[in-house]
Amino acid sequence: MIYIHTPADGDVWLNRFRQALPGQDIAAFPQPVDDVAVTTLITWRPPEGLFARFANLAHVFALGAGIDRFLQRPDLPPHVQLYRLTDAGMAQQMIEYVLFGVLRFQRNMDGYLRQQRQALWQALPQRAASEVRISVLGMGELGTQVAQALVRLGYPVTGWSRTPKVIDGIPCVHGLAQLDDLLRETDVLVCLLPATPETRNLLDETRLTQLPAGAAIINAGRGELIDLDAMLALLDNGHLQGAQLDVFPQEPLPASHRIWQHPAVFVTPHVAANTLVDPSVAQIAARIKALQRGEDVAGRVDRQRAY
Amino acid sequence: MIYIHTPADGDVWLNRFRQALPGQDIAAFPQPVDDVAVTTLITWRPPEGLFARFANLAHVFALGAGIDRFLQRPDLPPHVQLYRLTDAGMAQQMIEYVLFGVLRFQRNMDGYLRQQRQALWQALPQRAASEVRISVLGMGELGTQVAQALVRLGYPVTGWSRTPKVIDGIPCVHGLAQLDDLLRETDVLVCLLPATPETRNLLDETRLTQLPAGAAIINAGRGELIDLDAMLALLDNGHLQGAQLDVFPQEPLPASHRIWQHPAVFVTPHVAANTLVDPSVAQIAARIKALQRGEDVAGRVDRQRAY
Ligand SMILES: NC(=O)c1ccc[n+]([C@@H]2O[C@H](COP(=O)([O-])OP(=O)(O)OC[C@H]3O[C@@H](n4cnc5c(N)ncnc54)[C@H](OP(=O)(O)O)[C@@H]3O)[C@@H](O)[C@H]2O)c1
Ligand SMILES: NC(=O)c1ccc[n+]([C@@H]2O[C@H](COP(=O)([O-])OP(=O)(O)OC[C@H]3O[C@@H](n4cnc5c(N)ncnc54)[C@H](OP(=O)(O)O)[C@@H]3O)[C@@H](O)[C@H]2O)c1
Repeated sequence: MIYIHTPADGDVWLNRFRQALPGQDIAAFPQPVDDVAVTTLITWRPPEGLFARFANLAHVFALGAGIDRFLQRPDLPPHVQLYRLTDAGMAQQMIEYVLFGVLRFQRNMDGYLRQQRQALWQALPQRAASEVRISVLGMGELGTQVAQALVRLGYPVTGWSRTPKVIDGIPCVHGLAQLDDLLRETDVLVCLLPATPETRNLLDETRLTQLPAGAAIINAGRGELIDLDAMLALLDNGHLQGAQLDVFPQEPLPASHRIWQHPAVFVTPHVAANTLVDPSVAQIAARIKALQRGEDVAGRVDRQRAY
Repeated sequence: MIYIHTPADGDVWLNRFRQALPGQDIAAFPQPVDDVAVTTLITWRPPEGLFARFANLAHVFALGAGIDRFLQRPDLPPHVQLYRLTDAGMAQQMIEYVLFGVLRFQRNMDGYLRQQRQALWQALPQRAASEVRISVLGMGELGTQVAQALVRLGYPVTGWSRTPKVIDGIPCVHGLAQLDDLLRETDVLVCLLPATPETRNLLDETRLTQLPAGAAIINAGRGELIDLDAMLALLDNGHLQGAQLDVFPQEPLPASHRIWQHPAVFVTPHVAANTLVDPSVAQIAARIKALQRGEDVAGRVDRQRAY
């Protein structure tokens, strides 16, 4: 049977999955469930020990795109297949979030906001979109669509990923060996990487220092990607123009963290791309049916590469 | 001969026009010029009396898209042809400016900024792009491209103009008779109209009140379009979510105006779409050559309709 365990709205998810998978045995927390009967788990923020309860667990569907927290769990046995959401309405939201940040930096909207507080009417230097070089780190489901939207709006975009990619209209490089050269030619750095053993602390002091003066950072991947102290030092000394950050090493970001009050940082509370009920139910239900027919499905996490 | 009169950078414009129109007789303020020889004037913010100096003036090229100030000038004789810039690199900038405002309202970025000051980590209600109904008043050179860019990003957009229009993917209505119905179904109102006798004070208290609760306004057309006091009252009582304003009845906006300090208003100093030297020179030079060949050119202002 299928068991749903979410931090909230269990009944909403239950009703939608029952509609999408008629005739199937589905229950949702906090309903009681016969643990040995559960073969499929649909969950987000699963409490410690949840996976261990189900002796016959075969498939876990995460109600999100980033599954780093799942992979850190000792109670998730290696033979269990883990699936993540792919796009499912998140790419559109991520495009909006990144675009807002890019426009804010390009058009110096922050500078105009500061001038407004002083009632100062004064044009600021203006860069054309064609002069703002954007690098998208992570050219997966979200990064690729974000990069394409930016190109459509006239920005020169380069993509970076682990494996080589050929994408129409977007030059792509890959691997650590090509990262430093890319950073040196980046005006806005967009981070849409997953947190893995390879990407944690990827943007450390040495790499961040490669960014040219005046560069800006948008991170909506995972907080672990960036050395926050190194980034703050580069913001403090004026080398970087600003940062728009949606993800942090610790979430919620502690109220005492100095980054909240940093004038060059815009903090959002992990809302860049929220899980949407309709497309998520449709995607997961279609995958459950395909698996029941013995077919392969997209979104399966490679436990070895950790994304 | 051709005379250039600009508030600044006269030598820059002179050099570029000499390159674009080799062999033609061109001078630029503050150079002295033989007034009777001047048949073509290229200018922005022309000082009082400038037009009257040139007895043989036939063509005036405005170095901008909005020519309301030119038409208010008693020294511009009716027989002189006035031309304005059409796009010339301004549509791209206007797309950026409007898009920033739309994203800011849709994604409640202002709310997150306020929460940041209190170190408050809390998701705010989120609307999908497909739920944010945008109306673009003024479907000319700029409005049409802005509307198309918004549609490409997933927003439902309706256009409004004086004459009927058929534009792929964008429902359009026209004329005063259809304005009130449109306003009642508008979440973000984008004003890209020229200031004319018909459009001045178009968005008065009665019309602004038609907007649904929570609507927002972006004005990058002309300040005269909106009754600012009526708009501020609707912002004060919470009926409107916010406004992003680039243009004002008086510019520079006086430092004492209360709008500078209004928490729901973002003020920018008439920088939404700046005149760019390269495309403007190319466009005007091509038009001068076409006129010399006896051809018709685009961008001619209809003095009767006043745009
Ligand atoms: N803030 C939010 O609201 C929010 C919402 C959703 C997702 N996210 C985050 O966004 C991340 C990306 O999501 P997605 O759906 O686009 O994931 P995805 O499809 O798995 O894409 C991941 C991309 O990162 C690249 N990558 C992984 N490891 C790398 C390495 N060591 N070096 C270089 N590139 C590497 C991958 O390269 P290859 O293409 O070569 O495999 C791929 O292009 C998620 O993991 C999650 O952390 C955040
Ligand atoms: N803030 C900035 O930086 C900035 C920069 C450039 C321009 N602007 C402003 O933007 C304005 C628009 O520029 P544009 O190049 O797009 O002008 P345009 O091509 O002349 O377009 C004007 C549009 O307004 C419509 N319109 C005019 N009078 C109307 C009325 N009484 N009722 C309904 N619609 C009416 C026209 O309708 P029809 O199509 O039916 O004729 C047309 O669609 C300029 O006039 C200027 O004021 C501001």
